Formats: sequence, structure tokens, C-alpha cells
Amino acid sequence: MNTEHVIGLSIKVHEQDNVAVVVSAKGLRAGSRLQDGTLLVDDVAHGHKVALVDLSANDEIVRYGEVIGYAQQAIGRGRWIDESLVRMPQAPAMGDLPIATRQAPVFEPLTGRTFEGYRNADGSVGTKNILGITTSVQCVAGVINHLAQRIRQELLPKYPQVDDVVALNHSYGCGVAIDAPAAIIPIRTLQNITRNPNFGGEVMVVGLGCEKLDPQRLIPPECATGIAACSPILTLQDTVLTGFNAMIAALLKTAEEHLVRLNQRHRETCPASDLVIGLQCGGSDALSGLTANPAVGYAADLIVRAGGSVMFSEVTEVRDAIHLLTPRVIDESVGQALLQEMIWYDRYLQLGEADRSANTTPGNKQGGLANIVEKALGSIAKSGTSAIVDVIGPGERIRRKGLTFAATPASDFICGTLQLAAGMNLEVFTTGRGTPYSLAMAPVIKVATNSTLANRWHDLIDLDAGPIATGEKNIAEVGEDLFALILDVASGRKQTCADRLGLHNDLVLFNPAPVT
Amino acid sequence: MNTEHVIGLSIKVHEQDNVAVVVSAKGLRAGSRLQDGTLLVDDVAHGHKVALVDLSANDEIVRYGEVIGYAQQAIGRGRWIDESLVRMPQAPAMGDLPIATRQAPVFEPLTGRTFEGYRNADGSVGTKNILGITTSVQCVAGVINHLAQRIRQELLPKYPQVDDVVALNHSYGCGVAIDAPAAIIPIRTLQNITRNPNFGGEVMVVGLGCEKLDPQRLIPPECATGIAACSPILTLQDTVLTGFNAMIAALLKTAEEHLVRLNQRHRETCPASDLVIGLQCGGSDALSGLTANPAVGYAADLIVRAGGSVMFSEVTEVRDAIHLLTPRVIDESVGQALLQEMIWYDRYLQLGEADRSANTTPGNKQGGLANIVEKALGSIAKSGTSAIVDVIGPGERIRRKGLTFAATPASDFICGTLQLAAGMNLEVFTTGRGTPYSLAMAPVIKVATNSTLANRWHDLIDLDAGPIATGEKNIAEVGEDLFALILDVASGRKQTCADRLGLHNDLVLFNPAPVT
Repeated sequence: MNTEHVIGLSIKVHEQDNVAVVVSAKGLRAGSRLQDGTLLVDDVAHGHKVALVDLSANDEIVRYGEVIGYAQQAIGRGRWIDESLVRMPQAPAMGDLPIATRQAPVFEPLTGRTFEGYRNADGSVGTKNILGITTSVQCVAGVINHLAQRIRQELLPKYPQVDDVVALNHSYGCGVAIDAPAAIIPIRTLQNITRNPNFGGEVMVVGLGCEKLDPQRLIPPECATGIAACSPILTLQDTVLTGFNAMIAALLKTAEEHLVRLNQRHRETCPASDLVIGLQCGGSDALSGLTANPAVGYAADLIVRAGGSVMFSEVTEVRDAIHLLTPRVIDESVGQALLQEMIWYDRYLQLGEADRSANTTPGNKQGGLANIVEKALGSIAKSGTSAIVDVIGPGERIRRKGLTFAATPASDFICGTLQLAAGMNLEVFTTGRGTPYSLAMAPVIKVATNSTLANRWHDLIDLDAGPIATGEKNIAEVGEDLFALILDVASGRKQTCADRLGLHNDLVLFNPAPVT
Repeated sequence: MNTEHVIGLSIKVHEQDNVAVVVSAKGLRAGSRLQDGTLLVDDVAHGHKVALVDLSANDEIVRYGEVIGYAQQAIGRGRWIDESLVRMPQAPAMGDLPIATRQAPVFEPLTGRTFEGYRNADGSVGTKNILGITTSVQCVAGVINHLAQRIRQELLPKYPQVDDVVALNHSYGCGVAIDAPAAIIPIRTLQNITRNPNFGGEVMVVGLGCEKLDPQRLIPPECATGIAACSPILTLQDTVLTGFNAMIAALLKTAEEHLVRLNQRHRETCPASDLVIGLQCGGSDALSGLTANPAVGYAADLIVRAGGSVMFSEVTEVRDAIHLLTPRVIDESVGQALLQEMIWYDRYLQLGEADRSANTTPGNKQGGLANIVEKALGSIAKSGTSAIVDVIGPGERIRRKGLTFAATPASDFICGTLQLAAGMNLEVFTTGRGTPYSLAMAPVIKVATNSTLANRWHDLIDLDAGPIATGEKNIAEVGEDLFALILDVASGRKQTCADRLGLHNDLVLFNPAPVT
């Protein structure tokens, strides 16, 4: 990307673009002039687009060097391109996309970058040391919440090396069509969350006894090989458990066995190749694709160069940029897997009588994003420039180092839940509008696309990518800052804002199958 | 129902039944004899069925006077009828069911039964006095949980008349196909939960700002008429809110305004006609339809006689007994509404490549229920004998006094969430296997189908219907006990076990529409 700064007021990303985005914090008034001489005819808000040439009706509107839509009517040079003036193009056809046609960039390996993590027996590395309590059904959530509180009060003070106890409550397990084909998604998600590196291979499963999801299915294969330390499943309907106190006593006893082992763990120096980073954006605006997402993409490339793992996600936010991704896959089979995820989602939306325009929120639009095409082009900037080495389905575990596309919905909390299941030990989340989103199971670093947000939410935003818009920093500088922050947070040297405040969202499963 | 007790060991419900259910707590050994002379050939566990006659292959197996299946092979008299021997019948066809053909039973009105409730301006009555905080999106859940904790610690002690503060967190709001036809279900559910009588008409809505579900949509119409006291929507992305402390300060300030008003409320004597009771069963066994559900049905009839409102629900658990319900509706339009809910659900399951056999859990089967037909026949016993005066869709509000069918999935926590939205002020929940399920928003009285469970979970079960199986009590006696308990709990004179222990489940929405 060739980013030209025009008196710090607007940005045109690609030389073929016929629009620029206003980046002046308070927008620009009619009568302002851009560096290329364009005279603003309308007031244009921060993040919104200005026509740099006279557009006739049906002309292509080009941003990022790509067609983001067609002019609904003639739009004179200097006019604000409101979303109502942009007709959305068809999504790229899947039929004849170029697959694995781009030469993978030659990266110099990046060595010597390390963090202090908790090494697990399976080779993975935790960035936190948490007792995760797995449940097979929502019915037990009240008991598990009570249990977690008791553990926090009565046991955790005795085990200072343990960061936290987390109840892995969810809405699944009973009242579900467990044999429906799509049920595999929530089931494997729950199976794999238990295996997240931040739980240290300690597996504690609590079930009710009559649920459809047999708690045995949540015992990972590592228990058979001894790589994970798994206590017997606790079933509340078990006849040995007489009354609530007996239940809680049994649960506390099992929990303590896990805590004893977790407490023996210590951080050790690990190479950056042990990072498994999930990338997401939410509450995006037109600056997302100009500041925060490119900086995240730069950091993603650094992590890949260091031998680490990076996941980008959000099917509905890459669908319209899929023609830019298929050339980047390493081979035909990865390309086909990528296309299959797109096709599956197209059909899923169609069955529900929705389409891709269901993405882009009112907030996105207020932030200047006309449609999902423009949003997708900005969204994929997070993936950097690396080759895409693998594609995993929703709820599957990551398999390879390098850049993986983890297919998930774009919903922040569903995507985060699925990235946890994939095995991420840290998440990076960009936002233009602002969100308090975070997870208890893995740190979430939040990057603002603009300094207005970063300043206003000074205790909720971890990094400000806004200086890229004003030219005070460049993408590489913020990308390096982010990488350094990732290593600090992964090491426990720095806490994220959300962790400091104790703000955490619920696990939310992706269940495309029916409930009963 | 003509319930014959056979030495307290087995129950045959209907004279045409060719099976009996073993109700001896430890089951019966082969060689035991039933009162009708049947000699047991197999060991038969508690709750399981015995053939009372020699059945040939394909013979009808009859329980509750209804065909619950066909013999897969010859089954000799005295044999255990394991579920594998029962071939499930087709679901009743919807085409030519008798509608409104049954003369409504002539009930003597029941007067003078009262409870102490919180009268609301709209005429409804709360059984608790709770500040409910409504949210438009999961993204804000971490902030709302923090807020609720702060309110509990800092504000509630000053307002002793207020029972609790409840964060109405949920998984909806962003990343959803909000214009998909089925999205109306989660949206109206959230709209109507805010209006639950236990929140006293105090409406506090917290949004993020960029979500798809406009928080304005969660403001009920009562705000415009002044019947509800609604504070301005708090939007976290609002530029006035600088940083987390400012957010929390603003939220606490608004919360306190509501608490001041809630604190002025007092319980007053209300007729039982102000009860809005939701009925559910979960973790059912073969005794559910013999003990707890008929007792609940008896109590339901009492409440209807007293002029109150009762809802029964769970489409997949009435579907196979629909031919017994259509005659009971008050008119053709209610009958058609009932059929439409069944048809909608049949199609919903079909789209997800599931069918009605997706209901019945492993626990149901261990408890002796062969299939969904047998389960449904036992389930509808909860509805008693009243006429069905209305049918509401998932997430809709109850409209009439008397017995309403509120169409919901059978999933306990989803059904409970939808019954809250319908306006229930108290729930009655029967269980054979046992569940800690409860809700923070309304009391949930749990009724055990058997004394073994009631004794073992003495501090989790509120009422034992087991003595019906042993003949120590009859259905009417337990039904009267339950009605008295409902009045006590609704009055705050008695606490449910779950409320005493603070065990509460999450709200879980029914969202048949896609996520994006």
C-alpha cells in the first residue's frame, strides 16, 4: 500500500483510487481543499469518503485499488460519497479464482524475540495459568459459577502461581439436535476449548448426567496418553452426591488437585514461534483499513517471520475480498478449503433468508464504511502479506505455524470463542468505534484505529494506531509497537486494560444446527 | 386418569394400557409378580416398562391409553420393554385433527386464594422486586457484570426493599442477520423480557453504539405512556463518557434513580388471578407423567379456576400428543395457531436436517422413556384439563387469563428465557433426573417426580411428588401442596432452594436466524 498523506486531512490508499477518506478528527467542512486540489462541496465526516473525480452514474468507485461499488447517480468531484450513493457489487464468483498464483514473499527469519510463557507437556505455551472448568451443559452453570467463586475465595490464595479460575459455561448440551450435521461445530468447539494452552493441560469436566452432550466427549485424547492431567468426570446426578454441599465439596476437592499441579508451573523463556495469535476487528470504521488493520498485518508478518502462528477469521468479512486471498494460499488444497468455507457460509445465510449485506452494522456505516465490500478490503489488511498455509473450520484446532484462515462468523464474541478453541494464546482486536470486549481465557489486546477513541477510552484501549492517520507514525512503527506489546502481555509483564478492570465476555458458541 | 396402585410397585395409568411402569425405588427383580398376576421375566429398573400381555411383532404398545410405539419383535408378558424394542410411530398428521371439539370442563371458580405481590402500573404483579438491566448486545456484558457487582456492593444496602439487580446479558445484538425473517424471535424476546412484571416497570437500557440491534428497539411502548419509568438509553460509545470510570459513574447514577423508585414499592395482597405461571419439565423420567406432571396439571387447573394465567410450552414435547390438544382449544383460530407452531417447528428441524427424535436425551431413556411419543404424553399432563385459550409464538407476551400454549423449544434454559419474555412471574419445573436449573429473574419451584431424587437433593428440590407413586399421597393432594407453595414463594414468604443457594442459569435466546 502506498499511503499518501494529504496535509493530514485525507488518505488515498492506492494510486487507482478515485476516492479519499477524510481523517481529520472533526471531519472537513465544505470549502476545504485536499492536496490534489479537490474542493469539498459537502461537509464530510471523519472516516467518510470524498469523490476525487467527477463520477457518472454507474461508474466504478475505487478504494484500495478495488471496486467497492458503483455510483447510483452522478457524483461530482468533492462530494461526500454517502453509502446511499454506492450500489454494492456482486460478491466475487467462486468459479474461476486464481489459486496459489502469487509467489510467497521471501521473509528474512526473525530471531531472538521471546516471551515468558508457561510451557505445556504437548509443546504448546500458555500466556496465563488458569484452571478452566469444562461443562457439558448450560444446566450446571449456576453450580459452576458458585464453585468458581468459592475457589477464588477459599483456594486461590493458597496457590499464588495460578492466575484465575474460569467457568467455561455455554448454552449448549441439552435441548439440541445433537445428531444434526452442523452440530459438529459446537461440539468440537467445546472439545477444543478445554485444550487451550492457557489451561495447562489440566482437564476438569463437570456434567449433569442426563444431557445430550455426553461429557465423555469433552475428554481430550491427551488424557489417554498422559499428556494432559484429567480428573474423573463429575456428574451432578451421580447418586453419591447427596445434596448441594456434597456436590460442592467433591468439586472443590477435584479443583484443588488441579490447582496443586498448576501452582507448580513457572514462566520460562519461549521463542516468539510459540505465539498463537488470533486477529479480529469489531466496531470497525473507515480508518480500520488505513491504520489499525495494516499495523496488525505488519505485526502478523513479524510473528510469521519469527516462526509463530497467526489466525485471521470472519468469513463474511473476507468473502468480498476472496479474490485477493486465493492467490496467497500455498497450494490447491488450501485454496479449495478456503473456497469451501465461503460456499458453506453462502448457503448457511441463504437457508436463513439472509445475505452478506447482513454484515456491516449501523456503527460501521456511521464510521464511513459504505458496505461489506469496503469493510472486507479493510478487514483483510490484518492478515499482512504472508502466504496462507492452512484453513480450519469453525471450532477446529490450528495445525500449522504461519498464517491460517480460521473460518468463523464475524460476530466478535463468537469469533473469539472459536479462536480460543483453535488454540490461541493471545488475541489482537482492532476497533474504530470502541468496544469493551475481552475474554477471561486469553488476553485480548485492543488497538484503536483513531486517536480520538484511544484518548477518550484511555483505560480501555491498549494501543493507539491513530498516529498513522496523522502521519506521526508509520504502519511499520505501530506494527513493531504492537509486536512488543504482544510479547509483554504474553509474558505477564503488562496487563491488558480489560484484564486490569476484570471485563470479560461470555463464551458464545456457533451452533448452526437446530435446538429442540 | 385412573391410576391403579399395584402393591406400590408398578403403575398402569389407563385401562387400555398393555404395559405398566415399575415404580419401586430400586426396580424389580425377575421373578417378582405384579398385582395383575404378571410374572417378571427380566429385571426391570425403576421407571421402566413391563409387558402386561404377550405382544407379537408390530403390535401396538399402549400407555396413557395411547400408542407409544410398535413392538419391534415378539415381547412376552413380564418382559422388560427396553427402548430398542419400541418402534416409534409417525407423528400425528396435521391435516384432519379435531379442533375445539371437546366441551370445556365446567370449573367451579376458586376464590379467596391470594398472595403478597408487587403491583405494577400496568396491572401486572411482580413476585420479586428486581432492577433488571437490559442490554442490546453481548459486547457490553463485561461492563454490565462489573456494574451489577458495584450496585450490589454500593447501592443495594441503601435500598433494602429491592431484592436484587440482574444483568440481562445475552448473546445477541451484533454479528446477527437482523433482517432475516426468524430474527424477529430473539428481538421480541429481548423487548419483552424488559417488561417482565418482576422488574416493576423500571427500564434501564445499556447499549454499545455500533450494534445491529438498535437499543431504541428495547424501549417498551409503556415508556411513551408513562406506565413504565424509563431512563435515557446509556450508550457506551457516547462521546460524553470518557474512560471506564465515567461509564460506570453514569451507569450507577441511572441505576440509583431506578432503585429509589423500586425501594418505595411494597407487597400487597393480590388475588391468585394475578399469577402468571410458566410450566416446564426437564431431566424427565417415566414417572414424570405419573407423579409430578399430573400434580402440576392439577395445580394448573386450580390456578385457572382462580382466574390466573398458566403457560405450558416445549413444542417438541407436545408435537406427538397434538391430537390430544387440538380438541381442547377454545376455537378454530386458536387451533390453527397451535398447528402453525407445530408446522413451523417441523420445518425448522427439517432445514437443520434433524427430526423430532432429536428430543429425548440419554437421561430420559435411562429414566425409562422409550421415545418422544411417550415423553410427550407425560409432558402434556402438566397442562391439566382446562381449555387452551390462546397460543403465543416464541418471545411473545401472554395475552389472556387461563391456559396458554407458549410455543418454545424444549431446552430448559431457552424455554425459561421465553417464558420470562411472555411475562411469567413464577415458574414450576418438574424433574426426574434432577437439575440445578433456576433463573435470577423469577422464582423457579422444582418438583421431583420421585422421592429418591427429592431425598438425595434435599436442598435443591422444593417439592416431592414421589409419594404419588407409592400411594402415600394422591395427585390432588400434591397439586394442592404445590398451589400453596406457589402462593408462599410468590409472596416471598418462602424462598426456593435455588434462590437460597444463589444458583441461576444464563438467559439463552432462541435465534433460528443466521449469525454473520
